[in-house]
Amino acid sequence: METLSENVCFGGAQGVYRHHAQSTGCDMTFGLFLPAEAKLHPVPLVWYLSGLTCTHENAMTKADAQAHAAANGLAIVFPDTSPRGDGVADDDAYDLGQGAGFYVNATQDPWAAHYRMWEYVSDELPRILMANFALEEDRQAITGHSMGGHGALTLAMRLPGRFTSVSAFAPIANPSASDWGRKQFTAYLGADEAAWAAHDASCLMRQDGFRGEVLIDQGSADQFLDLLRPEALAEAMAARRQPGVFRMQPGYDHSYFFVASFMADHIGFHARALAL
Amino acid sequence: METLSENVCFGGAQGVYRHHAQSTGCDMTFGLFLPAEAKLHPVPLVWYLSGLTCTHENAMTKADAQAHAAANGLAIVFPDTSPRGDGVADDDAYDLGQGAGFYVNATQDPWAAHYRMWEYVSDELPRILMANFALEEDRQAITGHSMGGHGALTLAMRLPGRFTSVSAFAPIANPSASDWGRKQFTAYLGADEAAWAAHDASCLMRQDGFRGEVLIDQGSADQFLDLLRPEALAEAMAARRQPGVFRMQPGYDHSYFFVASFMADHIGFHARALAL
Repeated sequence: METLSENVCFGGAQGVYRHHAQSTGCDMTFGLFLPAEAKLHPVPLVWYLSGLTCTHENAMTKADAQAHAAANGLAIVFPDTSPRGDGVADDDAYDLGQGAGFYVNATQDPWAAHYRMWEYVSDELPRILMANFALEEDRQAITGHSMGGHGALTLAMRLPGRFTSVSAFAPIANPSASDWGRKQFTAYLGADEAAWAAHDASCLMRQDGFRGEVLIDQGSADQFLDLLRPEALAEAMAARRQPGVFRMQPGYDHSYFFVASFMADHIGFHARALAL
Repeated sequence: METLSENVCFGGAQGVYRHHAQSTGCDMTFGLFLPAEAKLHPVPLVWYLSGLTCTHENAMTKADAQAHAAANGLAIVFPDTSPRGDGVADDDAYDLGQGAGFYVNATQDPWAAHYRMWEYVSDELPRILMANFALEEDRQAITGHSMGGHGALTLAMRLPGRFTSVSAFAPIANPSASDWGRKQFTAYLGADEAAWAAHDASCLMRQDGFRGEVLIDQGSADQFLDLLRPEALAEAMAARRQPGVFRMQPGYDHSYFFVASFMADHIGFHARALAL
């Protein structure tokens, strides 16, 4: 593993690291914020999964996350959103291929060779993090924005016991019924929709729910509301009696200004769930 | 004046606006955060001047500023760092020409036609802001980073009564004695060093000081310490008995991770000076 940068930040350290990943068959880059406490003992870890077009860097620099992580003694990891590189399949559209991995393991060509983001974020990266940094494996929480909110919710529900709490900012809530989902699932997973439900937060919520609390924030002026379909998730949460909160925030759009505005609430929510 | 974007942010609004500037003879873009209180009544204004290579956007997205401005009911303006455009003189170096206006009025060709950033930030932009937004003209404070810290300190000292308080993050503190200064002052102001002292924070501090409190943060691991020359400013502040605080922050570098880490302190400092 190679250290690309480390900056002192809110008394801790914001690092960027690169490593070869077996799962995706390419080099992967991630950001990791470690609070000052990590110099003394392992600390809990919050996962932040990013949205379409993002790399590891966007939320690391624009989401106001480190201040609140430091205040609560939490680490935050910022994985990339897809495999990368010249030898990795891509598409001219911003919402397919590099920058748009959708946190699934692709089974269809030309994607199957590298697009194994589910395996990367659920298995390989956790092992790398636990082996190399002062992190508590049994104290993890997860959040994300847009496509990353989809990733956070699906990982949290399909890996029971892994995360104490899950939250999301404007998640792609029902991709099986959205152009942010149908196109990508067809490409990555194939036309058989039976394979899609395992990657649809609203379907998973209806079926299994989450063993813990859920926090969802959605802006009422989000320019992508028709694609996100928050109503499907809100309905599923209520129908399942899922412990948690769904908040429609008046006037907010899909930008990082929205994410930053509620980051303190999300980090605080996870800190409480982690008993910090 | 054209509205390029407005995003709801921490209960207020983060806007980006473009207008033709008489001073610089070109279109100029700035960011302005208005807290929720500005919908009800005029609010105090903090100026944030940015550093080399930055536009209006960098600090607006990476400095964690809006959270603290909103908490204190303050507006923050993020001006650009130079004139821009195809017809505006430039240089291949990152530290001269576009993105590197140094907050002076150039007197030398080819810069004199457009490089009038002193006039822009001290006169034209303030008039535009006061005429178009709910801002209190008699309650203003100023801060900045690197070249913008230089700008903040020189404006504050040379415009007595304009700003209640001044702070800076890793300012270019003594440009007359630095390669971040001598090169640019020679290009913009000419070889006669007598014209330079009015744009050197350490010279101004020795000569006049500031009528109010000063807060300076400097990272001890800043990769540009030799160019910033914080020791000149620290000596001048102490020699003049300038009310204020100079803090050497261990381990921090020159990045926005450093700026963000201490933004709460700077906004809080200005809020107290503005009697909020």
